[in-house]
Order: sequence, then structure tokens, then C-alpha cells
Amino acid sequence: MSAPRLGSIESGGSKFVCLVGSAPDQIEAETRIPTGRPGPTLARAVAFFQETVARTGRLDAIGIASFGPLELRRGHAKFGHLAATPKPGWSGVDVAGPFADELRVPVGINTDVNGAALGEGRWGAARGLDTYIYLTVGTGIGGGAVINGNVVNGLIHTEMGHLTVPRLAGDTFPGSCPFHGDCWEGLAGGEAMSARWGAPAEELTGDALREALRMEAGYLAAGLRNIIYTTAPQRIVIGGGVAAFPGLFPLIRAELTSTLAGYPGLPEHAAEDFVVPARLGRLAGPAGGLVLAAGAADAARPSPDVGPSGGADA
Amino acid sequence: MSAPRLGSIESGGSKFVCLVGSAPDQIEAETRIPTGRPGPTLARAVAFFQETVARTGRLDAIGIASFGPLELRRGHAKFGHLAATPKPGWSGVDVAGPFADELRVPVGINTDVNGAALGEGRWGAARGLDTYIYLTVGTGIGGGAVINGNVVNGLIHTEMGHLTVPRLAGDTFPGSCPFHGDCWEGLAGGEAMSARWGAPAEELTGDALREALRMEAGYLAAGLRNIIYTTAPQRIVIGGGVAAFPGLFPLIRAELTSTLAGYPGLPEHAAEDFVVPARLGRLAGPAGGLVLAAGAADAARPSPDVGPSGGADA
Repeated sequence: MSAPRLGSIESGGSKFVCLVGSAPDQIEAETRIPTGRPGPTLARAVAFFQETVARTGRLDAIGIASFGPLELRRGHAKFGHLAATPKPGWSGVDVAGPFADELRVPVGINTDVNGAALGEGRWGAARGLDTYIYLTVGTGIGGGAVINGNVVNGLIHTEMGHLTVPRLAGDTFPGSCPFHGDCWEGLAGGEAMSARWGAPAEELTGDALREALRMEAGYLAAGLRNIIYTTAPQRIVIGGGVAAFPGLFPLIRAELTSTLAGYPGLPEHAAEDFVVPARLGRLAGPAGGLVLAAGAADAARPSPDVGPSGGADA
Repeated sequence: MSAPRLGSIESGGSKFVCLVGSAPDQIEAETRIPTGRPGPTLARAVAFFQETVARTGRLDAIGIASFGPLELRRGHAKFGHLAATPKPGWSGVDVAGPFADELRVPVGINTDVNGAALGEGRWGAARGLDTYIYLTVGTGIGGGAVINGNVVNGLIHTEMGHLTVPRLAGDTFPGSCPFHGDCWEGLAGGEAMSARWGAPAEELTGDALREALRMEAGYLAAGLRNIIYTTAPQRIVIGGGVAAFPGLFPLIRAELTSTLAGYPGLPEHAAEDFVVPARLGRLAGPAGGLVLAAGAADAARPSPDVGPSGGADA
């Protein structure tokens, strides 16, 4: 059997990244579409994949790693639709439907961070693990959990940016989250850092930079502690702009060791390969789309042990 | 095929509850053994099951829901052993081994709260769900997560009692956790309540009782928020002595609605069937042992599609 020809979409607030291939280093075609009104944006994405089919005669499945919040409960009437989102015009939009309807291929969909988690698991910093976390710390904070090899989608997808953590001593910044004020993202996302310091973090220098990084590491460690005690990950992979700050990872590891306070006393939690930078960078989301597409293709394939003659002969 | 004859052990700090049966309402034999030194305690438990085998000729598997911390990584040299525990003499003890060695049956083992989670899922308040939380709030706080139908065991089991949550305004109690001081359990476990109020919670009356319940609900809601945003459960089941306080559940639900602050805006999070009392009471752990035993029996059974002639004929 030849390699599958999969379509991947990372649908974000500013652009849709669409590609066709089988792996991050096996990309046949790619396009970027600015995120405008839903109808035309989705139509342009559909057209990109239609051209692929016209050219090659084949597309096996499509995977979408999308901004949220998304309805992901199987069998729900709004499966694959956006819920209420601040992005104008996009609330309630059916993101998955147009691709299934127009291209007649299996479509997998999940959140952008869950997609990135799957991508890092297949080709990146979480390869070979079955229980791990992918966290992005950029303007905001988002996290996806893979547990026993599967993404966590219970009542809804995870919303790790909105954890509650204690304030650091002396921090009077009210927080930037429109819902919670001083939740994790509201205290430690890039937007919060800019608001607290009166300048984007990347413009800080000297003592202000040192203090900003110290606080950032402290807040990130507090949230990581909550994630660790709740999901017992084998590794935590962190991507996003804030995570790229030089020197931040050693500070996070030190603060994490401090806040865990020797409980449960695993040397693994202090090891350098426990909290690590993401490897795929901007390709994590598109790679996740490929994993979601492959999963949709597998799910749509008739299972060998439910054929008409049924059962195994052992 | 007749119903399996399963052995279940709930091994706790004060006693081992051992039983034989197939369900909480199908118990053939039961005994309680005070938790003394490891050797004699385990030997008495082994002997109880040996008598069952002598009498009936059959025991299909044993499941153990044990106090922790436990090593649960498959293939680890210390699988089924206790790690460092405050219980004198029990650190490093092989809890699962004696049963496998002496009884020659498959043995499943997990933590007491994970066992209780499985029991509540099979016969109790989480029946029919695949992603849910079981929380016990007694002297301490412990939580088990079932995600996509499986217990979470990554690097280790979950340790939800040690989440970090913000202090409520005006609460100056330093916290009772020997590791973290004011972690979730250190602020909201039964031991913390007693220490804060100078008397066991069940002896409080009037204004003190009202204030204690208000604070307890506030702290529990903060931890639940962190669990919800991290694992997206379909339901949270709470057992344990503190959870039995009359009037506590409505307060928890109100505080949870307040701290979620409309995000992600699901009506399910405010519904009366979202945060619910446990149903199995003291049988949750032993029921969990039965589920673990059944799982061990299944895992030991040869799979039909890996027989010598291999594959399916479809």
C-alpha cells in the first residue's frame, strides 16, 4: 500500500494553513488563507483540496486542528462546530462539515493544541510516550493532554489556560482574562506579561527582564504542578512565543522542583527531559492535522474482524 | 461461561478488606484484616483466598486497590510495590507479588482511589461514562481519573490532593500538608478543617459550621475547577466523610459556577448531575478490586486474533 495522501488544516484566528502530504517532511502542497468571513474562508480551503484531488485523483482523509471552543462529542448534532467564540462571525460555524460534504472523505477534527499534542507525539518531543501534555504559552496559554495514547475529550476539550493558581507574593497585577481575571493565562500569558510590565516581554532588559522571567517561571510551575498531579504525564512539551525566551526552561524546572516539594519524590520530575521545548515549532499544528486525518482514515476503514464471515479462525 | 470468581482487596492504612465474588451484590466470602506488619498481614490475606480455592476449587483473578504511593509502570522492576509511605514498615513492600506467587492467578493492582473510581464507574454514580473523576474528601483528599474508559497511570498515578489553589480571602490557617503546607488537601481535607477550627468539623454548630462549610465549598470548587479544565470530565463523583456533610453539595455547585465564571459556558457544569455524591460508599474500593481483577483476567486470556493460525478470514 502506498503512503496515504492526507489533507491537514490548522485553522487559526489569523490564517488557515492547509497542506497535503503524509508527514511534516513529506508535504506535496501547501497554502495559507487569511481567516476572513467563514463562508469564503472555508470555500477557499475546500477549493485547495479539490485542486489536489483533480491533479492527483486521490485524497484519503482530512484532519483539522482548529481554534475553539469546539463541540467534539461524537453523535452531537453540532459535532465539529465552533461554540461561542470572540472571533467575529465564527460562533456556531460548522468547521468540519464543508470538507466532509464537498470532498467526500473522512474528516477528523480537534482543537489546535490537541492537534499540536498529537503532532509532537508522532514526530516531535513526545515521540514514543503515551501520556503527556502539550502546552503553548504565547499570547494566551493552551494545553492538550494525551492520556494512554488518546487525546482527552470528555464533556469538552481541555481548557488548561484557565486553571486557578495562587498569586506570587507582591504581584498586584489584576490579570488579563476577560472571564476570570487572574487565572493562569490571565497572570502568565504573553498578553498578561505585556500588561504587567507595560511593554512586550521581548522588549524588557536588565532587572525588569530578570524579574519578569522569575515570575513567569513561578506561575508556569504552579500550573504545571496542577497538571502533573491531575494527569501524571511522562513529559510536558511547551511551545509558543513566551516559551522561546532564552533561559526560561531551567528557571521553570527549578521552580517546579520547589513547588512539588519532594512529593511524590520522583527523580523524573526534576530531569531535563521532563519539561522540554516543543520540537516542531509552527509545524506542530499542521502535523497534528495529519495525525487527525490518519485517524479519520483508520476509523472509516472496515475493520477486518467484523467482516460478513466474522470472527477469527484461531 | 459461569460468572467469574474474583478476589478483591482494598488495602488501607488501618485494614485490608478481602472478598470473593463477582459484583458488590454477589459476594461469596469476606474478611477484614487489621493492617499490621507487612509480612503477617499479607500472609493472612493470601490465606483467606487459599481457603476459597480449597473450598471451591477456583479463583480466576485478584484485584488490589491499595494505599500508595505505588509503582504502577508496566515492566518496571518494582511494579506493584509501595514507594516511600509514612505507614511504618510498608515502604518498598511488594503488595501484588505475594498473591501472584502463592495463588498463581492474574493480579491487577492500582491505587485505592483509582479502584473506587472504577467501582463507581461499573456499579455506581459514574455508570455509563467514559471520562470522569472520583474524589474522596476525608482526612485527606485523593482523586482518580478515568479518561476514555481507562484509569490515568502515566509516570505515576494521580495525586490530586496536592493541587495548588489560591487561599480564600482572610484565611490565615497555614495548612496541614507535611510537604506543601497549604495545598488543596492541606487547606480542605478533614485534618485541615479540624486544625483550622480547633475541633472536628462534625462537632461544629451555628455560625462556625456555616463558615466552615462555605470555606470548604470554596476550596473544593477551586480544585474542581483545575480538574475540570485539565481533564474535561463528564461527571465528578465525591465520596469520603467530609463529602457526607448535609448541605455541602449545593454549596459546592454554587461555588463552582462562580469560579468557572461562564467559561467555557456549558450548562452541564451547573447541572445537578455533574458534581454528585458517590453511590457505593465503603464498597467503592472493594468494588474497584473486582474491576481490577476482571481486567487482570481479561488481560491474561489469550486473544482470539493472535492464535497460531493468525488473522481474520474476512
